[in-house]
Amino acid sequence: MTGPRYTPTVAALPASVPFVGPETLERQRGRPFAARIGANESIFGPSPKAIHAMAQAASECWMYGDPENYDLRHALAMHYGIGADNIVVGEGIDGLLGYLVRLLVGPGDAVVTSDGAYPTFNFHVAAQGGSLHRVPYSNDAEDLPALIACARELDAKLVYFANPDNPMGTWASGPDILSALDPLPDQTVLLLDEAYVEFAPEGTAPALPLDRENVIRMRTFSKAYGMAGARVGYAMGASGLIRSFEKVRNHFGMSRIAQAGALAALGDQEYLQSVVTQVDAARKRIAVIAADNGLRALPSATNFVTIDCGQDGDYARAVLQALQAQDMFVRMPFVAPGDRCIRISCAPGPVLDLFERALAAALAALPAKR
Amino acid sequence: MTGPRYTPTVAALPASVPFVGPETLERQRGRPFAARIGANESIFGPSPKAIHAMAQAASECWMYGDPENYDLRHALAMHYGIGADNIVVGEGIDGLLGYLVRLLVGPGDAVVTSDGAYPTFNFHVAAQGGSLHRVPYSNDAEDLPALIACARELDAKLVYFANPDNPMGTWASGPDILSALDPLPDQTVLLLDEAYVEFAPEGTAPALPLDRENVIRMRTFSKAYGMAGARVGYAMGASGLIRSFEKVRNHFGMSRIAQAGALAALGDQEYLQSVVTQVDAARKRIAVIAADNGLRALPSATNFVTIDCGQDGDYARAVLQALQAQDMFVRMPFVAPGDRCIRISCAPGPVLDLFERALAAALAALPAKR
Repeated sequence: MTGPRYTPTVAALPASVPFVGPETLERQRGRPFAARIGANESIFGPSPKAIHAMAQAASECWMYGDPENYDLRHALAMHYGIGADNIVVGEGIDGLLGYLVRLLVGPGDAVVTSDGAYPTFNFHVAAQGGSLHRVPYSNDAEDLPALIACARELDAKLVYFANPDNPMGTWASGPDILSALDPLPDQTVLLLDEAYVEFAPEGTAPALPLDRENVIRMRTFSKAYGMAGARVGYAMGASGLIRSFEKVRNHFGMSRIAQAGALAALGDQEYLQSVVTQVDAARKRIAVIAADNGLRALPSATNFVTIDCGQDGDYARAVLQALQAQDMFVRMPFVAPGDRCIRISCAPGPVLDLFERALAAALAALPAKR
Repeated sequence: MTGPRYTPTVAALPASVPFVGPETLERQRGRPFAARIGANESIFGPSPKAIHAMAQAASECWMYGDPENYDLRHALAMHYGIGADNIVVGEGIDGLLGYLVRLLVGPGDAVVTSDGAYPTFNFHVAAQGGSLHRVPYSNDAEDLPALIACARELDAKLVYFANPDNPMGTWASGPDILSALDPLPDQTVLLLDEAYVEFAPEGTAPALPLDRENVIRMRTFSKAYGMAGARVGYAMGASGLIRSFEKVRNHFGMSRIAQAGALAALGDQEYLQSVVTQVDAARKRIAVIAADNGLRALPSATNFVTIDCGQDGDYARAVLQALQAQDMFVRMPFVAPGDRCIRISCAPGPVLDLFERALAAALAALPAKR
């Protein structure tokens, strides 16, 4: 053998990856999408104050960002009434997921997630050689008691649980989560991905004591704050676990522009609330559009609506293709039975007008319902 | 034992980290620095076209960046006359170093670097449990033949070599590098960190065939392009090695704003040349300031000048402290004999005026030369 010697774990990884962005699809199609409603980005955009802060920071980006993320961490600590040492800021939840997996997971270590949940988590676990176990969804929702039971049985080091869930949009209540946590072993870390929690009903986020060493929660500026392209997320948890990120994180990894934008975005809670209100209206509108076309929208606590196309995965994939042919960038759950659905990001009225027309046209272009 | 179970490698890592940013020092001091000339940032700033592109992109940052970095990779490919599949874009060289180390290095694997070279590389190797071997500098320069001899002896998987070097500012010529590579084993990857190469004399970058699987070079928009805080770097090499990054990289890790800025910066080569010219003038001025104060500037092919304080590490550290007391943010090499020096980033005239006064005052405040 010649050439680089990859680690055994890396050598065993597939060369292809599941991440296809809308730009890639546009290049393949040879024309742009008319609506970008497939990646749960916030088409309502970031706060004007955040945009202003980022535009101002552009001329200062000759400086590295503060490696401690001091200002943002302290503003978040104030916002939540917790300690700054209970917070670590990173390059989006994607980046933080990678760090957490590298802290805990080595070759063969058991990790538990839901079958069809966030694929980037699985990608990070695979890169560490972890042994990933998938628990089925229950009634289109992640099943926390079953996840924890599986983790107990396998003595898993890490369990992934998103609340609200992506891609189904469903959620558990805070009290239900708290009681489900009782059997969680001390040495099993529950990763609570709350990327969409700002869109969820009051009480969806569990009131967790911060000294609980085996739960870490992650949130982001990518969704409700509308800054997916800036790459800012944060994790909250016990100070010991949070401090361990210092061992592996990219200390100068945060964009200075993103730091400034996130700080300004956090300071504009009024704008955040206006987005949440608009998203709620958009959810209702998408449900109406679905119903008008004979489809059923699932209840959602996120900034997207998952629409049950009423048949199997092949049919939903055909609907998706037909929507793409109508210049809609839309995605869908990968795994059955969720793959009977398509997933539509909330958007302002004019974008949903386009979707409304496109959905009717897409369905009309398909063979009649069996 | 209770609580999270870290991997054995992580559990063995020190909790403290060597990365202290200027903002941290300012918080500790309770007052800002008057000049930020310690981190080799480009105080000349980014191209106005890059600033404009980033400010424009701020309002579009609700969209994730293109995970393929298609436009930037293709622009770089055109710029260098190579294939886009020979380039991977990442979150600064720091991010790319981490990916490369994770591709190749597992617990106990031998890795070679210079004693006193870039600490972030060492940090990444430690996080993978690699066994890091340090080769002394020779005449204040990284010693490529000795690095490769050490790698052969240890059957190392990876060798780090920065050209030009940080923190000493020295460099090797392209032809010397090419001939030194002859004994590099096929299965040992040489990582050629060219973060500062735009500042170096013509011929410093070796003319490397791109099908050479065991050399990968990394470059950045943080130095000559003045965008350290935006986090854009890239690696160039054989397509097989480059493709392997897909297995571990954070596919949606790039800031959309940074992508836009880097593309515009690359397109403004005239501005880049003006920075290189100004940096050269600043290097000469810093050497004069050093000589005026009885110190000796080392020759530099970078955007900083390393100044030999003429005594031992304790004395240079005292000079550094005295400069900080004069409100100068300055750093110095960590490891002897380089630690007899301090390191000054190039800067526009008014900043160097401040440094000139501060250096004289700092030296005057120290006990007389022994």
